[in-house]
Amino acid sequence: MLQITVVTGNANKVREVASFFTGLAEVGHVKTDLPEIKSDDVGIIARAKAEAAFVLLKRPLIVDDTGFYIRALNGFPGAYAAYVLDTIGMEGILRLMEGETDRDSYFETAIAYADEEGVFVFKGRVEGTVTSAPRGSEGFGYDPIFETGGRTFAEIAISEKSEVSHRARALLAFKDWFLKNRK
Amino acid sequence: MLQITVVTGNANKVREVASFFTGLAEVGHVKTDLPEIKSDDVGIIARAKAEAAFVLLKRPLIVDDTGFYIRALNGFPGAYAAYVLDTIGMEGILRLMEGETDRDSYFETAIAYADEEGVFVFKGRVEGTVTSAPRGSEGFGYDPIFETGGRTFAEIAISEKSEVSHRARALLAFKDWFLKNRK
Repeated sequence: MLQITVVTGNANKVREVASFFTGLAEVGHVKTDLPEIKSDDVGIIARAKAEAAFVLLKRPLIVDDTGFYIRALNGFPGAYAAYVLDTIGMEGILRLMEGETDRDSYFETAIAYADEEGVFVFKGRVEGTVTSAPRGSEGFGYDPIFETGGRTFAEIAISEKSEVSHRARALLAFKDWFLKNRK
Repeated sequence: MLQITVVTGNANKVREVASFFTGLAEVGHVKTDLPEIKSDDVGIIARAKAEAAFVLLKRPLIVDDTGFYIRALNGFPGAYAAYVLDTIGMEGILRLMEGETDRDSYFETAIAYADEEGVFVFKGRVEGTVTSAPRGSEGFGYDPIFETGGRTFAEIAISEKSEVSHRARALLAFKDWFLKNRK
């Protein structure tokens, strides 16, 4: 069977990938947090991580990176979403958005796949709006302040979110390509 | 004479280094913006840039990185100062600091020097406070909202700032070491 190694510090991500490839590929895990380059494009970050990981591991692998982009803040926090959450938090984001009528935002995930033929990047995006206060208790990160289709991501069960999320969309795009091109 | 190449996209930085080494070393310039790793420590970022630059250039060189750290915001914007300025700006910082009594902050620059013997990092820091509104028209970046010794960095002439700044302190630390160890 085809094999894919998921390079990540987060075991949940490995389980998610495995569920996408049940019966289609064997999904392994190398647990490491790779150094990341500074960029506002999650595709560039994921590509660089996949290249570096392939030099070390020399087997087919995927890595990912996710950003959260708010239009009224010129894309902030973007690919720095995790750092911003750790410092000023959701509260800081809501403060920056006080009185702002343009609430448009999106999540974007890039999956980068590397093998001996090169690095291939697949993106998934979900558009929505920033709420005025957190709602819901599911999920993690910015989920309580990101609303799409009338609910925040923290008001959607994990099982449902993993079918509609930016990450799921990127994984689906990768899966389609992978099954066509790496049989 | 000793030689040092400054690797930067900013010609002003080269002139500043040259003024520190007048009569002591020849200062050259390779104009490039190197990719940066994601880290909240400017020392780690500068070190990685210097290593990468030395692999390419194979001659004694320096690179630098600067961060702006606000205690009440858990260090935000830190090493992401440039990105944050481009997105939410000084205005965003002031908004996040509204009503905050702890205004402590500092600028920190790391200079990384690389030659055939390794990479050496030198840091300079200036402590101050975040003002409640911008003041002054000199300088750049966060200078109008950073106060030290009763004035903001934007209220100090460039010539004076270049003697007392975080960057000047890092350069002085490097110069001391360099003249002792690389004669």
